[in-house]
Amino acid sequence: MTLPSKVRIVEVGPRDGLQNEKTPVSTKVKVELIRRLGATGLKTIEVTAFVSPKWVPQMADHAEVFAAIEKLPDVTYPVLTPNMKGFEAALAAGAKEVAVFGAASESFSQKNINCSIAESLDRFRPIVEAAKAADVKVRGYVSCVLGCPYEGEVPPLLVADVAQALLEMGCYEISLGDTIGVGTPEKTRAMIKAVARRVPLKKLAGHFHDTYGMAAANVYAALQMGIGIFDSSVAGLGGCPYAAGASGNVATEDVVWLLTGLGIDTGIDLDELIDTGVWISKQLKRQPASRVARAVLAKRAMTANA
Amino acid sequence: MTLPSKVRIVEVGPRDGLQNEKTPVSTKVKVELIRRLGATGLKTIEVTAFVSPKWVPQMADHAEVFAAIEKLPDVTYPVLTPNMKGFEAALAAGAKEVAVFGAASESFSQKNINCSIAESLDRFRPIVEAAKAADVKVRGYVSCVLGCPYEGEVPPLLVADVAQALLEMGCYEISLGDTIGVGTPEKTRAMIKAVARRVPLKKLAGHFHDTYGMAAANVYAALQMGIGIFDSSVAGLGGCPYAAGASGNVATEDVVWLLTGLGIDTGIDLDELIDTGVWISKQLKRQPASRVARAVLAKRAMTANA
Repeated sequence: MTLPSKVRIVEVGPRDGLQNEKTPVSTKVKVELIRRLGATGLKTIEVTAFVSPKWVPQMADHAEVFAAIEKLPDVTYPVLTPNMKGFEAALAAGAKEVAVFGAASESFSQKNINCSIAESLDRFRPIVEAAKAADVKVRGYVSCVLGCPYEGEVPPLLVADVAQALLEMGCYEISLGDTIGVGTPEKTRAMIKAVARRVPLKKLAGHFHDTYGMAAANVYAALQMGIGIFDSSVAGLGGCPYAAGASGNVATEDVVWLLTGLGIDTGIDLDELIDTGVWISKQLKRQPASRVARAVLAKRAMTANA
Repeated sequence: MTLPSKVRIVEVGPRDGLQNEKTPVSTKVKVELIRRLGATGLKTIEVTAFVSPKWVPQMADHAEVFAAIEKLPDVTYPVLTPNMKGFEAALAAGAKEVAVFGAASESFSQKNINCSIAESLDRFRPIVEAAKAADVKVRGYVSCVLGCPYEGEVPPLLVADVAQALLEMGCYEISLGDTIGVGTPEKTRAMIKAVARRVPLKKLAGHFHDTYGMAAANVYAALQMGIGIFDSSVAGLGGCPYAAGASGNVATEDVVWLLTGLGIDTGIDLDELIDTGVWISKQLKRQPASRVARAVLAKRAMTANA
């Protein structure tokens, strides 16, 4: 049970985070957030979604955001492309990496993207084909891997089926998402064990939500299974812990703190990351949802007053 | 790496929790809190500290609290007794179990209880002797087991030394406390490994603070090492996450949720526990610090509005 020595973090705050925030965020603030995130040492930053503003008004400025961001040479800036129209727009904007978003629960697939799991995979296949032809990498998301708001428990074999389908159609990496944050460590391990029989471990990412405060424990369990890529969201963007629903991505600060404590290299400057989380939280007029940020800020304040 | 099938939770909210809360709590509220906690299925509830009101004014009503609480036949109600005077008062009050509180850091011992580690152990020895003579059980706490606010890292061997000394003088159980919540899972494992060479695993308890959001991950790591007893505090009593210092015991609700998700029996009714956490938080005029409580309350509110 040796843990990975290095971990890559996929920052999803500007997309998965802001998409679920109620406070509107200007294009300028999004671009500045992405610049600050790049300066922390993050190497993958999901920046926006090429999706209809009818469905996701928060991402209506996707083309403007993508055009305006400073693109560091060693950083990848993937964008979500749920359908061919979105993919074509992303390609026209110059995206080098895109992502498609499936589910391991039929009910969630129907309610979230209005089609069955099989139909969603059929919809993704031509996107992945077109991406290959354009030398664009495709990341695949699987949501509800540890539970569904409509169906409850989700069988690990169903997660493995969807992950395998995404791999076989050409996704280079599969992100396994505990969308509603109900996972606990042993279920996380069992799910990864089932998926790893079909998809190489090094192509799998863990994507945990901290709804019930279990994300760090689940990340640790996933590391023990050999997972070396994790999605997270600066300041826990993507849902306020005080609002109904109480969802929210695990904070990047918390993941970096955990990994650093485990002796795992992330290449990310935690203090700069905390400052970035404080900055974007101010724009949203709230406190960072990151426990690490709050503790470090409290410690800084005590030191300043001493 | 089989996890324990059962875990005993030691609820420390009425003592370790309320002792660190700034809002004063009446004797009546304390007694009612303890009654409600007993009704959730908790079998060990640390109820107060027999300590000078000069040092801990929050616990000045220790004798009144202990006399007033309804004592369920299958529940133990330990009290903290830092010195012989406190022990004698606890004995006179009818306590059947007491606890002594040491540290694995010299600087913390000096600043917290005004003596060296060796002096503190010398002070505890006659208490444990007197307790034995009176057929009273003694629990030993070791604080700063994963870090000290003054010294930083604490060597696991030093934790093992103090734990062993407490065992040898007659403590029936040793609680290992990450007092400032800086622990991460691999350090937790290494510390437990060092201590378990000197103290039988079944006599060890884990006591984690959630300052950096790592408590659930540390509990999981401790379970993997074979620990089957955990201290926690309903509603995360013992420090508000928004205040400077940002300490706080791991919430009992979060530990019960984690254990339940791991298939481990606690005998505790989570819904009653959440209600108890909401009730005491209202007395303190704040939200429960438990992430599980917040998520469950948000879900209840959504269901009620649906």
